[in-house]
Amino acid sequence: MSITHPAGFAAAGAAVGIKVNGGKDLALVASTGPRFDSASVFTSNRCKANPVLWSEQVVKDGVVRAVVLNSGGANCYTGPEGFLTTHQVAEEVAGLLGIGAGDVVVCSTGLIGLANDRDVLLKGVHTVHAALSRDGGADAAEAIMTTDSVSKQVVVEAPDGAGWSIGGMAKGAGMLAPALATMLVVITTDAIVDAADLDAALRASTRVSFDRLDSDGCQSTNDTVTVLASGASGVRPDLETFTAALTQACTSLAKQLLADAEGADHEIAITVCGAASEDDAVEVGRSVARSNLFKAAVFGKDPNWGRVLASVGTTGAAFDPADLDVAMNGVWVCRNSTPAEDPALVDLSPRDVTVTIDLKSGPAQATVWTNDLTHAYVHENSAYSS
Amino acid sequence: MSITHPAGFAAAGAAVGIKVNGGKDLALVASTGPRFDSASVFTSNRCKANPVLWSEQVVKDGVVRAVVLNSGGANCYTGPEGFLTTHQVAEEVAGLLGIGAGDVVVCSTGLIGLANDRDVLLKGVHTVHAALSRDGGADAAEAIMTTDSVSKQVVVEAPDGAGWSIGGMAKGAGMLAPALATMLVVITTDAIVDAADLDAALRASTRVSFDRLDSDGCQSTNDTVTVLASGASGVRPDLETFTAALTQACTSLAKQLLADAEGADHEIAITVCGAASEDDAVEVGRSVARSNLFKAAVFGKDPNWGRVLASVGTTGAAFDPADLDVAMNGVWVCRNSTPAEDPALVDLSPRDVTVTIDLKSGPAQATVWTNDLTHAYVHENSAYSS
Repeated sequence: MSITHPAGFAAAGAAVGIKVNGGKDLALVASTGPRFDSASVFTSNRCKANPVLWSEQVVKDGVVRAVVLNSGGANCYTGPEGFLTTHQVAEEVAGLLGIGAGDVVVCSTGLIGLANDRDVLLKGVHTVHAALSRDGGADAAEAIMTTDSVSKQVVVEAPDGAGWSIGGMAKGAGMLAPALATMLVVITTDAIVDAADLDAALRASTRVSFDRLDSDGCQSTNDTVTVLASGASGVRPDLETFTAALTQACTSLAKQLLADAEGADHEIAITVCGAASEDDAVEVGRSVARSNLFKAAVFGKDPNWGRVLASVGTTGAAFDPADLDVAMNGVWVCRNSTPAEDPALVDLSPRDVTVTIDLKSGPAQATVWTNDLTHAYVHENSAYSS
Repeated sequence: MSITHPAGFAAAGAAVGIKVNGGKDLALVASTGPRFDSASVFTSNRCKANPVLWSEQVVKDGVVRAVVLNSGGANCYTGPEGFLTTHQVAEEVAGLLGIGAGDVVVCSTGLIGLANDRDVLLKGVHTVHAALSRDGGADAAEAIMTTDSVSKQVVVEAPDGAGWSIGGMAKGAGMLAPALATMLVVITTDAIVDAADLDAALRASTRVSFDRLDSDGCQSTNDTVTVLASGASGVRPDLETFTAALTQACTSLAKQLLADAEGADHEIAITVCGAASEDDAVEVGRSVARSNLFKAAVFGKDPNWGRVLASVGTTGAAFDPADLDVAMNGVWVCRNSTPAEDPALVDLSPRDVTVTIDLKSGPAQATVWTNDLTHAYVHENSAYSS
């Protein structure tokens, strides 16, 4: 399923001894073509992990034939030795598949500052290569999990039975923030899409999906989203249709990440409307998504709209501070920056929460997704490496 | 003590019925001159509370003769009626003191979106006016507390027995962030300092004290720091000496706020050295101070330096991502962006934690203070208004 749903891909996931708990920890996705167009986006964090430094070079020519991903260690801040590990893993994969190492994207996730055992990884590459199959998508999705409680997969079929599809898998459960976070995503399609178009479609899709996710404001060092197009369906969709389907796949995966965020009790959709520009709307939404006070209030089922406006006020967006409206779960608790409907009408028991902020300054809008700040979040993140 | 330590000031604090728990909730500080020089800084949040909107006008001419402060309600997002309440409180204080309302700074703190009972406040003004005394500083400091567990006060004597002093009081226990937070500070001095010099001294002092405090990244709507100079000592110190003493007072109050931050287990001083500029150092320090993942790790006594570097990487400061050093409590756990001394040597049991980040890019440095992210923080802030 998922990444092996489109034609032209094989995948595998196995336990090769990287994770101390014995779980699946190495995944391999290989394209069998006939085309090998690709596009990728990476973390905008300047402190990038070794696999990101490697893969940024690999993807430059728009050709990727395989992606190898390990959990159990991020290979970040591990120096030149860590980079050599990444390089050798790519060479090993390339050797077994009979391709060039320069066409192999490498992804790692897990603890920062921890060197992966190179021999274990290299030996593991043989294991997953031997296991490659046309239905290995689910195993691969499982092998990239860290603190994830469930694997994240998606399949989107072409509209009108056009004969192509998109598959995807993702991992990520924390450190989710704008411009991606500890998030590894591989997307496959058997549509024919040239690399340049694939790049345009991917950037358009991530801009309104993964980039609108801000679980805890922390930006990872390892984020990678790679899309591979095998062309195996023989069908070339128009770019608009393909971009819409890709956006649907990315949004589904983003929402699966949100739903599995570490320790969260609520999924919060912050919609900012009446904005002078989409950038303004996103800036305001993110400022609220990053307010610990607001997020703790949602955990406490407290419709504290004052904390929403206090966050809005820290932004540079166009608005009149004396003329803002705020709704929580559809109840307009604040009109014209003064108390309006009774906050007691807001029921914050359900897991899904909506916040709507009307800036009354223009026609643009955007939605940013976040989680609440809970005891479980503090617990999980105070004990991650110990 | 504190604000009534310098000559030329009377103060009072009393329970007048604003707080539902019956605690002290109204404070008055009056200068008896002979001079009434003043300077103030306010929150940079664009959503400002009514008392801030009022007081910003009051302080423009550099003359302030009284400050009236209430806890139990922030008078923020309460509309024109809320502004009228602030205005009438200033008029009432002015009438009783025989001064103009345009020389009365008003401060409020408490829940946002809650209208204060105007009649209770106006009646309360009479109570605190009747209680004004030369030793009312401690009562005033107590009356401005909200979730504070202790009152914050400071006295700094002039060096070399020069015959003048500085007193100060502050409230604040959460929503502490750059450019001030739910923080009310009144500082008094009997030195002779012209309003323009006082302004320069105050801005220099807050820049390296309150502005370097980032408890939870949330910026308040009500922050006010006002300094009043009565000139009653008859001594005119040179500006450098006065600024140093004022900085000492502000730093003491800032550290008292930090020590009393809601639910914190640790006080964390993040020093960034080797920076190309002080702005770079502050930007890097703040990025780490705002990382929930790093703060939760400190709570868990986990010296997770990877989360430090992941935050550094989100900044625009000058540095080489492959050449960063990080120490925690003096142990250099990371050198040249790779693991160095054993993190097990870092004992995070004590309340005070130091993090040192060497950017190796210049001579500048700065320290930013924050707290850890704890279960108690989540608890207190999930139940504040309910």
